[in-house]
Amino acid sequence: MRLTILGCYAATPRTLTNPTAQVLEINGHIILIDCGEGTQVELRRRKIKFSRINHIFISHLHGDHFFGLPGLISTMRLLGREKELHVYGPKGIKEAITLLLKLGDSWTNYPLLFHELASKEPELVFEDKKISVTTIPLDHRIYTNGFLFKEKEGKRKLNIDAAQNYGIDKAYYQNIKNGKDITLDNGETILNKELTFDPPKPKSYAFCSDTVYDTNLSEQLKGVDVLYHESTFLESEAELATKTKHSTALQAAKIAKAANVKTLVLGHYSTRYKSIELFKEEATTIFSNVLLADDGRAFDF
Amino acid sequence: MRLTILGCYAATPRTLTNPTAQVLEINGHIILIDCGEGTQVELRRRKIKFSRINHIFISHLHGDHFFGLPGLISTMRLLGREKELHVYGPKGIKEAITLLLKLGDSWTNYPLLFHELASKEPELVFEDKKISVTTIPLDHRIYTNGFLFKEKEGKRKLNIDAAQNYGIDKAYYQNIKNGKDITLDNGETILNKELTFDPPKPKSYAFCSDTVYDTNLSEQLKGVDVLYHESTFLESEAELATKTKHSTALQAAKIAKAANVKTLVLGHYSTRYKSIELFKEEATTIFSNVLLADDGRAFDF
Repeated sequence: MRLTILGCYAATPRTLTNPTAQVLEINGHIILIDCGEGTQVELRRRKIKFSRINHIFISHLHGDHFFGLPGLISTMRLLGREKELHVYGPKGIKEAITLLLKLGDSWTNYPLLFHELASKEPELVFEDKKISVTTIPLDHRIYTNGFLFKEKEGKRKLNIDAAQNYGIDKAYYQNIKNGKDITLDNGETILNKELTFDPPKPKSYAFCSDTVYDTNLSEQLKGVDVLYHESTFLESEAELATKTKHSTALQAAKIAKAANVKTLVLGHYSTRYKSIELFKEEATTIFSNVLLADDGRAFDF
Repeated sequence: MRLTILGCYAATPRTLTNPTAQVLEINGHIILIDCGEGTQVELRRRKIKFSRINHIFISHLHGDHFFGLPGLISTMRLLGREKELHVYGPKGIKEAITLLLKLGDSWTNYPLLFHELASKEPELVFEDKKISVTTIPLDHRIYTNGFLFKEKEGKRKLNIDAAQNYGIDKAYYQNIKNGKDITLDNGETILNKELTFDPPKPKSYAFCSDTVYDTNLSEQLKGVDVLYHESTFLESEAELATKTKHSTALQAAKIAKAANVKTLVLGHYSTRYKSIELFKEEATTIFSNVLLADDGRAFDF
């Protein structure tokens, strides 16, 4: 699982800071999460092929999280895209994008499929053999969802040494990989688990931005491997955080601790602070495994 | 008069090329012309204060000419703008921007005034004591206007030597600057033109992008000081230019020659060519005074 931060600063794009957008590579999928202005340029800068992105998840309709989407959708048309693009986001996103394309007489020549979200309860919005994606309802100034991405458990791996020890012919290896038990010539049945290794433990990633500090979140986030939780402010601006429905680094750490996640990634920083290291310092006072998102930074989990 | 090119490449923003946006400083006004994605970052990079921009002119509603506008308008709100912003552009622009602001519950707290254009004839869309702005109807795939910016003639300048020679008291200098004749104590009347210099000749700038080659244009462009005419292609792609309703560098030069402009600025280049110098080479075969726009380049006229 690889997370590439295209942008992780609050509010407006600047010469040195990009608004929110990130790419999650998970079990063969390449997923774009949020799409602030300039995202298509950052995708190019990070050499991520537009054609490999089939799913885009938009948390909410503030400009710093989706004003790059019309441009990206238009560019995909210019690049000759033919396959489906799925966009998940708050109700209204379809009307907005459709209007912009209509005004430019620039309909996509690929299927552009919107999945509009309106529920205030978590809902499964995508699932295939590899992953599932569930919304994480967040409390922000407008309707907002985080997203919980979970790998599905993979197939068990063949234990070649064990198979050879039992004298099993290679012709049966595919059956073993498919989970079948094997009956030897002598009639003895060897259970599949004797012939295979456990598959890698499925990984999970939760994206939570933008949100006020909400202790209820920890329930749905219980045990996730990686939690990206916004930390627009430090505790010195805790009041401002509450007022604008954002969180502080300390609050993000409290959520991470209560949910017992493995790794906390901080981001969505206000540009008022001298250094983003201050966010890490604050969070690590109560949760040890903290990573700092930064534009262009990639993490492998 | 100063023209700063923020972006001048066709189609989509890339890591090294920006879509169309330019800033015209003319007789005290700072005007933004077109606003492709990423324009707000380029404005910051060029150190042009957002607060000095009061008028934005949008040629047409293709993404590479206006997808940066919602973000710029939102940022002006975050910066605490209070004064009016005037946006001139094709019918539909108001609905699009309004919808985006509504979805984000992000109404501007400054007056945002749209002047929607629908006429296919040139019309005067802005005028004050300093400048006038007239549309230049263009023939592109969707409804498109160029814009003709003209300085108004300034006040005549006081000729101090002449005033002193006639023994005129300084108390009358303001009257002279205001264009009045002066009657001396001996009853003799000195005409204002004897006491003043001609004001600087008013300058004019015509922005024409995007457009097919249209010989009718030269009539309205007759004698302008500076013509920015799109040159998406070279003559080798003349057919493609016609089909997509764009122009070649040679065609832009033909318009410049027919209109007898002083300077031709080329831009809106397709990124298929190795060097933009090729555009200049082609245009100068029939018109000598050719400048090449490039991102970040500024011209003083």
